[in-house]
Amino acid sequence: MNRVIEQILNHRSIRTFKDEPLTDEQIHIMVESAQRASTSSHYQAYSIIGVTDPSIKEEIAGLSGHAHVKNSGHFFVFCADLNRLAYGADPETKTKMNANLENTEHFLVAAIDAALAAQNASLAAESMGLGICYIGGIRTDIKRVDELLNLPEFVIPLFGLAVGYPDHKPELKPRLPMEAIYFENTYRPDEQAYHRALERFDETLQEYYAKRSTNQRQDNWSTQIQRKLSKPVRMEVTEYIQSKGMNKR
Amino acid sequence: MNRVIEQILNHRSIRTFKDEPLTDEQIHIMVESAQRASTSSHYQAYSIIGVTDPSIKEEIAGLSGHAHVKNSGHFFVFCADLNRLAYGADPETKTKMNANLENTEHFLVAAIDAALAAQNASLAAESMGLGICYIGGIRTDIKRVDELLNLPEFVIPLFGLAVGYPDHKPELKPRLPMEAIYFENTYRPDEQAYHRALERFDETLQEYYAKRSTNQRQDNWSTQIQRKLSKPVRMEVTEYIQSKGMNKR
Repeated sequence: MNRVIEQILNHRSIRTFKDEPLTDEQIHIMVESAQRASTSSHYQAYSIIGVTDPSIKEEIAGLSGHAHVKNSGHFFVFCADLNRLAYGADPETKTKMNANLENTEHFLVAAIDAALAAQNASLAAESMGLGICYIGGIRTDIKRVDELLNLPEFVIPLFGLAVGYPDHKPELKPRLPMEAIYFENTYRPDEQAYHRALERFDETLQEYYAKRSTNQRQDNWSTQIQRKLSKPVRMEVTEYIQSKGMNKR
Repeated sequence: MNRVIEQILNHRSIRTFKDEPLTDEQIHIMVESAQRASTSSHYQAYSIIGVTDPSIKEEIAGLSGHAHVKNSGHFFVFCADLNRLAYGADPETKTKMNANLENTEHFLVAAIDAALAAQNASLAAESMGLGICYIGGIRTDIKRVDELLNLPEFVIPLFGLAVGYPDHKPELKPRLPMEAIYFENTYRPDEQAYHRALERFDETLQEYYAKRSTNQRQDNWSTQIQRKLSKPVRMEVTEYIQSKGMNKR
């Protein structure tokens, strides 16, 4: 196993950081790594905002429910950005382009571009001895995050990335058995094997939650998910995104 | 610079492959690497389909317009998958869950989960001496790809990933100046610096297209994008995704 794969397989999300900010060089390497990711049609349809202002960090920590946003060594917000694509276009061209900028295809392009970039930045950070945690929680009040960062039309915050020197080492969290997520040529060729794999995973998670070093509980994968998704979650995201011009046709 | 960052910064998309399939071990390592990526609420909301059937590969190569799909050593399709989340739920719970599975927030969760996983798989492949190319072109006829792979409701193909031993070494493709994509605390604090950065990038691309080793042309970044986006692109993706139950409320 080479160094890159070793790094990838060693990932755990870090939620407690030492009180030490990232250096400019570390930030620079993370952004440069993000930018080297593949990008649809060379659009590079994302922007990255580094949040260093303590009052903004604190407010985002509060609204997302994650104290490690505030205590991170650097906090990034990855944004889907289709705004830049109309740079320099005359009004007539802009009107034509809007049919695309407003559709689901290009919303998807921007979200995927941003996520590929973020994963490169994350691995670069981890390879420098830093820990990371994605913060989807910024979407709990996505409109407020938008206001805090002054985002224009066609730009929306997708997720945060808290980065810093790890101050704990959690266990590796189990992943689904490969039979439950990887198939050849057709989706779920063997239903029984699929269901057995999910059952096995529930048992694995039950054991993981019962035995892990902190926050032990009685739970498994499917029960936890059903509980989470049985009440409406972030229903306002839809309208907010459309209000920014995206995903509306 | 460490080995991981070096690998990340050395990425170029590979579009010509040697006639040599991936080994089962390579495929296994790529999928395992994909699975280790961060995932929202532990949902792991994606599936990966390895396409080895020559007739399916050929049809996807045709509809996406990319011959290297057919000639790859292995072709993956990364799917957003919310279907698995209702595993084992009773009908009443399923009904409640649908409000979430059908909203934009969870469409986004699945797309981001899949992209993070794919970027891990890509870097693992590149670290083993393989080359990769993302194939957004599968969305040109997304409905047909869905049929070919037998995807059920709440599962959609997002992009392909062609992988194999590189048979060319393209130049590194330039990326936007950092001032155009990375900001501190607020979006575009300095409009003039932003516009200068985009102007500079147009010049960089003009030179890149004029001088690169193959497929030289007169073009720049903004002109190319305006040309591409001035006609409707993949407008059917919206309706298709909604027909699968996703991104519809």
